[in-house]
Amino acid sequence: MISIEEALSKILSEISVTNRELVPLEESLGRILADNVYADRDYPPFHRSTMDGYAIKSADYDSSKIYHCKKEIFAGMESNLDPGEEIVKIMTGAPVPEGLDAVIKIEDSQELSLENSVSKVKLNSDKIFYFMNIAVRGEDLKKGEFVLGSGTKIGMPEISLLASLGVDNVSVNSLPTVSIVSTGNEVVPVGSTPLPFQIRDSNSYSLIAILNRYNIKPKSIVLVPDEEIKITEALDKGLESDILLLSGGVSMGSMDLIPPILERLGVKKIFHKVSLKPGKPIWFGKKGKTVVFGLPGNPFSVQVCARIFLDPYIRSCLGMQISEPLRYVFYGKRKKKSSLPEFFPAFLETKDKTGLSSKSFNGSGDIRAGLFADGIALHPGEQAEILEGNVLNFFPW
Amino acid sequence: MISIEEALSKILSEISVTNRELVPLEESLGRILADNVYADRDYPPFHRSTMDGYAIKSADYDSSKIYHCKKEIFAGMESNLDPGEEIVKIMTGAPVPEGLDAVIKIEDSQELSLENSVSKVKLNSDKIFYFMNIAVRGEDLKKGEFVLGSGTKIGMPEISLLASLGVDNVSVNSLPTVSIVSTGNEVVPVGSTPLPFQIRDSNSYSLIAILNRYNIKPKSIVLVPDEEIKITEALDKGLESDILLLSGGVSMGSMDLIPPILERLGVKKIFHKVSLKPGKPIWFGKKGKTVVFGLPGNPFSVQVCARIFLDPYIRSCLGMQISEPLRYVFYGKRKKKSSLPEFFPAFLETKDKTGLSSKSFNGSGDIRAGLFADGIALHPGEQAEILEGNVLNFFPW
Repeated sequence: MISIEEALSKILSEISVTNRELVPLEESLGRILADNVYADRDYPPFHRSTMDGYAIKSADYDSSKIYHCKKEIFAGMESNLDPGEEIVKIMTGAPVPEGLDAVIKIEDSQELSLENSVSKVKLNSDKIFYFMNIAVRGEDLKKGEFVLGSGTKIGMPEISLLASLGVDNVSVNSLPTVSIVSTGNEVVPVGSTPLPFQIRDSNSYSLIAILNRYNIKPKSIVLVPDEEIKITEALDKGLESDILLLSGGVSMGSMDLIPPILERLGVKKIFHKVSLKPGKPIWFGKKGKTVVFGLPGNPFSVQVCARIFLDPYIRSCLGMQISEPLRYVFYGKRKKKSSLPEFFPAFLETKDKTGLSSKSFNGSGDIRAGLFADGIALHPGEQAEILEGNVLNFFPW
Repeated sequence: MISIEEALSKILSEISVTNRELVPLEESLGRILADNVYADRDYPPFHRSTMDGYAIKSADYDSSKIYHCKKEIFAGMESNLDPGEEIVKIMTGAPVPEGLDAVIKIEDSQELSLENSVSKVKLNSDKIFYFMNIAVRGEDLKKGEFVLGSGTKIGMPEISLLASLGVDNVSVNSLPTVSIVSTGNEVVPVGSTPLPFQIRDSNSYSLIAILNRYNIKPKSIVLVPDEEIKITEALDKGLESDILLLSGGVSMGSMDLIPPILERLGVKKIFHKVSLKPGKPIWFGKKGKTVVFGLPGNPFSVQVCARIFLDPYIRSCLGMQISEPLRYVFYGKRKKKSSLPEFFPAFLETKDKTGLSSKSFNGSGDIRAGLFADGIALHPGEQAEILEGNVLNFFPW
């Protein structure tokens, strides 16, 4: 039985090469940049006034002088000085005319008169300096400068930036295709009425949820009974996808039909069983470009395995960085019996600082196990009891 | 100028009544439950074996006895005892036959012989107790028991649970309709080439991103120049939605066309200006069932206002709880000049514990401001400098 770290390293060494595709900017949220992005021009693209006020040449500033102002420049207007013009009235966001280099804010001015579109103005700022109240052309970004790296997930600040840069079609990494096969004679579809000894298929939905974080919609979701021919057919079809996810059927019971069928279909086993709880019986293998995750059948087990093993695999396929666990103080105590590292549902709780708490549940088969949890925390294998104030690794869902 | 708390309380007292709708379970991720959900039957629905082994009546256990086992029960099989049967072989997930009440795991058994489908078995467990290795019918949930409350966001554990309960069509709160109007002569669409004194519309995309967290797609997104007739037309149309979002046009400059137009259209101002940075000029009003957020024009300002004011409003409309800020230690130092509470982009950084760090940027007009940030942290108004180790409120994006 290998450790979590070994299992992860084996999984991550089976990453397939990713293709790329263009998507419209408005559909790019949650997608991963395939290429680096560079600034198409300087940002700000012009000396931009950050205040409503009067633009002036700082060297000409004289608080005793009466200035003649003939022009008001708004955002979106071309701006230039006519011969003899010393100041212009300027609005926030407007370009500062060439020749001027400071903006005195409106509160520090006094309009004495307005005649024939010429206003007489006194300016009285307690300081004046070069580029005062001006966002200088190129101070945020220079034309051609590197802005966003490939592998970046497009969230709110990123989509806003891409819009600013005029990237209306974004080159993103293609999403892997995924098939889900659930097995088990006891499992019936959600819409049907189970007999007393049957349960409904919930694991497919946990997997749909993990995939949804990356905008991946499974290509197919099938539920097959524990019959060799039907399982073989379903797996054979599922192997056409980049990732085949199986749930159920990999415990140590007599119904362990799946591993031998996978082998007959040419899937090479990479590992079976990992030292963790829940999810110990996880199976991982590969055929050609397709990786196969055989996930345990209990609802919480499948969620833990999906988060700890499948999620980093998908991130890597998409060229993203693997997210390191966060570290939080634990509020409470927790004992465990086995010597295996144990994941449990954890809840962000804010006292003076934000930490983690846990709730009791009836093991990995408890359908309420992960409910309302913010993620899962790791109870280290060697530690029989976690005490109040211990710092734990936390994996947000 | 009112405080952030006052502004929020005014915003949240303008919640409209929400309708509900049915969506298929597989499309329910991220949606909000409109009704409480109760267990349709006991969970587990039957006494379920949690091990591969032999089911026995605990009172009959005798380690010196040789048992005759005629039957093997798998998950998904109906199970019952024939007259005279004392034990059955049972697999994980299978129902324990009536009359039996403990499972001795396979590792603690010894099969002596197998003849005519009858196996002779010795059992040797170091302990035996009622319901040993059995998940008892109803131990997770009793039929009719409350499971999920209205207002719950459907994530991974929740969708899995709903699947288990057979909720194949979920009653969720309807999404509010949203229109976005961006204004400003300097603003051009993302796909066009701006003149040197123009910029591209990025704020609509920040708003699309916030809405996307709740599966809301804006009904319309329009960009209008600073012309009274065109703005009036666009706002009038936008007021048909539940929420009208405006960006740009609410600064104190001469281009402040929007507030008077809104008033002429019958929108009642509820507040204008809030004591925070960035985003001070935010405007909020209402007409009939429609609320109007007038958001400032700078990219980072619009993101802060969307997170601090719009996000809680949407959550409330959907019947969700407002998420309290998280609390993290700050790694670093940070000064501010004004006495206003100040939001800045913050990054989760994991040393021994996870805390927050910041990066420098050129103010709220800097198009890179929020980039890669995990959210925004609050620099309290009264505190001129944050010191290493101070604990701050953090609002994840």
